[in-house]
Amino acid sequence: MTHLELTLQPEDYSLLTDLYQLTMSACYVGESIERRRASFELTVRRLPENFGYLVAMGLAQALEYLEKLQFSPAQIAALQTSGIFSHAPDRFWTLLETARFTGDVWAVSEGTVVFANEPLLRVEAPLWQAQIVETYLLNVLNYQTLIATRAARMRDAAGPQAVLLEFGTRRAFSPQAALWAARAALGAGLDATSNVLAALQLGRQPAGTMAHSLVMALATLQGSEMEAFTAFHRYFPGAPLLIDTYNTIAAADQLAQQVEAGTLTLEGVRIDSGDLAILSQQVRSRLPGVPIFASGDLDEWKIAELRGAGACIDGYGLGTRLVTGEPVNGVYKLVELDGRPVMKEASGKLTYPGRKQIFRCFEHGQIHSDRLGLITEMPNHEQPLLQPVFKQGERLQSTETLEAIAERTSVSVASLPAELRRLQCPSPPPLEISASLLELTNQTRHARPSRND
Amino acid sequence: MTHLELTLQPEDYSLLTDLYQLTMSACYVGESIERRRASFELTVRRLPENFGYLVAMGLAQALEYLEKLQFSPAQIAALQTSGIFSHAPDRFWTLLETARFTGDVWAVSEGTVVFANEPLLRVEAPLWQAQIVETYLLNVLNYQTLIATRAARMRDAAGPQAVLLEFGTRRAFSPQAALWAARAALGAGLDATSNVLAALQLGRQPAGTMAHSLVMALATLQGSEMEAFTAFHRYFPGAPLLIDTYNTIAAADQLAQQVEAGTLTLEGVRIDSGDLAILSQQVRSRLPGVPIFASGDLDEWKIAELRGAGACIDGYGLGTRLVTGEPVNGVYKLVELDGRPVMKEASGKLTYPGRKQIFRCFEHGQIHSDRLGLITEMPNHEQPLLQPVFKQGERLQSTETLEAIAERTSVSVASLPAELRRLQCPSPPPLEISASLLELTNQTRHARPSRND
Repeated sequence: MTHLELTLQPEDYSLLTDLYQLTMSACYVGESIERRRASFELTVRRLPENFGYLVAMGLAQALEYLEKLQFSPAQIAALQTSGIFSHAPDRFWTLLETARFTGDVWAVSEGTVVFANEPLLRVEAPLWQAQIVETYLLNVLNYQTLIATRAARMRDAAGPQAVLLEFGTRRAFSPQAALWAARAALGAGLDATSNVLAALQLGRQPAGTMAHSLVMALATLQGSEMEAFTAFHRYFPGAPLLIDTYNTIAAADQLAQQVEAGTLTLEGVRIDSGDLAILSQQVRSRLPGVPIFASGDLDEWKIAELRGAGACIDGYGLGTRLVTGEPVNGVYKLVELDGRPVMKEASGKLTYPGRKQIFRCFEHGQIHSDRLGLITEMPNHEQPLLQPVFKQGERLQSTETLEAIAERTSVSVASLPAELRRLQCPSPPPLEISASLLELTNQTRHARPSRND
Repeated sequence: MTHLELTLQPEDYSLLTDLYQLTMSACYVGESIERRRASFELTVRRLPENFGYLVAMGLAQALEYLEKLQFSPAQIAALQTSGIFSHAPDRFWTLLETARFTGDVWAVSEGTVVFANEPLLRVEAPLWQAQIVETYLLNVLNYQTLIATRAARMRDAAGPQAVLLEFGTRRAFSPQAALWAARAALGAGLDATSNVLAALQLGRQPAGTMAHSLVMALATLQGSEMEAFTAFHRYFPGAPLLIDTYNTIAAADQLAQQVEAGTLTLEGVRIDSGDLAILSQQVRSRLPGVPIFASGDLDEWKIAELRGAGACIDGYGLGTRLVTGEPVNGVYKLVELDGRPVMKEASGKLTYPGRKQIFRCFEHGQIHSDRLGLITEMPNHEQPLLQPVFKQGERLQSTETLEAIAERTSVSVASLPAELRRLQCPSPPPLEISASLLELTNQTRHARPSRND
């Protein structure tokens, strides 16, 4: 076969995994340990540079995956004929034939801010099931958490009044990445997406302005930029007009004449190039009261810079720097097996053993501190962030609306101390490790079963 | 609705677009210019930092999209009920009902190296069709070209003998991004992917090793790391063993005893942490002849650094830094309409007008220079890189195999002058603009139809 089919079906996703998840599962079957109870936790060890927090996102897709997990006869046949499993035990295939996820899942709600070393999710399930879901869970939570965090930072930089539009589809890493970016961005407080499919699937109205090509096309065929504005305005009177194709100020002057003459009701203009701070001030003075949208590789730092420079910008189109860039690198680590705490400690990549809970302490509505402790510890006027979302393979909660998630993001970011919200060099999070967890970590380190030395 | 469905159907893709592509098309219909012949070219104006070239990739998916483009009655109804198009002409809907792509496409073959300002693709079609496909074409070509370029650079840094494995699924930006990354990486010369679904869809064998979780699970339940190695080796005797869970050197020593005793035939080991140069040398001295794989946030620069430090590494697992990071930011610009050249010139974002061709001049098998000229110019012992791939909506070529694309990538990268292949501060490309194109650019600039000043 020479190219990937565009189609992606839910039943494809069980093979959307690294080969070793399947080979390791076959090994577990061969050793008759595949049903031992295992707990894996998904944690981000180090945040992207200049990030003081993460906004958890992607749980809805993760749970949908777990609900639908199964292997079709065709998939099993494809694995069998690959030859890779020729020494694997036959019982591996009967396991796949009837596979479904029967475990428990604990997770932090979407829209909640979390810090490095805090688990976003824990899977407690038969070892082979908990193993096999690793790749997909990391894929969905890593990506949507990245986008949600960027979106929340951009919202924080732009202020609550600004209109923030997600324009990233052309720069997103595949069509599905565009859809998921739109979802995560809306869940983290952006107002709308330009992606029509994403908007319709999410029950939202897509948003957009116009492109240079329309201005150029109508200017070429009908004689002037103003003809382009007039034509587009005729069919889409509410859409902002893009005024930087030739000369931004000249376009603003011409539009101002029409507005003053009462022949045009202008709902907004967009500027996509040039010195946005200065141009937006000049446009504002010519078109008072008309919303000004800015776009062009903008991110949270540029938004803050523009606001600091006194730019007159009411809305931002956010694309490339929202949907690409340095990733969130979550890992998914075995922390308990058969009731025994487990940890990896090679070369500084330490993970804390045991099933854990994040106990969050608030003071006057602000996050005072987080305590990373064991699930068996009791909260002490603290909010436990990890909540059960799956019990014995059954979903416990109905899916939240995107509006509820966006509200949680807003409240959660607002509860952060200022030094963690900073865009540059945020402070380390107020995270303490509980005495019980420290003790368990020391015990596990000294009791590790496989010292080779 | 509260979450995106996991399903992606080919018929969904017509709405995988920015809203303004649809509103502008409706405006073209209203102005009766929707069938004017338009040419758009897809070009990367500026390469990511330290990139001397790009490897074109993603054309197969772009063409599949164009072949399948259509709007279903349900999609049209969804657009109609959105309210956004309430002032749009009725004829827009009849256009969508019978929509299919009827234009011509010229493109650079996948696996070809190109430089900034060289078109990767040109669409020549009725204006509204050429407009509406922008978002999707940019999405697929931007992303796969990025991945192919990174993969080609990693191959170039690692040398032709190294085994390069694509391990990026958990860090890719959505499941589909993982599939497309695997395709692009294989097309640019990587040997295999760990993504089972991608490998099976591409007719390849998936590859993989084992994870720390298996070592920890078996060490916990059966007593030692060596039990884990023995067990996994029993079912997958060809798979490399991961030896850095506890103590890399101790693990290598234990394996060496088994190899020397003749009780183990070792096909490879993997090291995922620590000082890979020193550890690989120490492991090589203990396990001579055993292939050593390295992984852990590796990229082309780290591969070059490891080789420079005398690392004994035979293969690399490449993930995060292959599939994420700074994007390729292609743009899709109107260059000709109704036979008239068109250009945008605002604020330094200049695009050359007219339908163009890249004329590549080779000397002794090396790229001597590229000439960006008009499609009407004749090659002068040069190779024209843009070839017709679609004619009046019909595909002209059958799809290429991934092996053929990988071979072209290899030859194409080998034809680059050394100063362009450098990983740091590569030279600017030997690109000249033809006299005819310069003249047309000047003419178009002075003849622009919409001077507001």
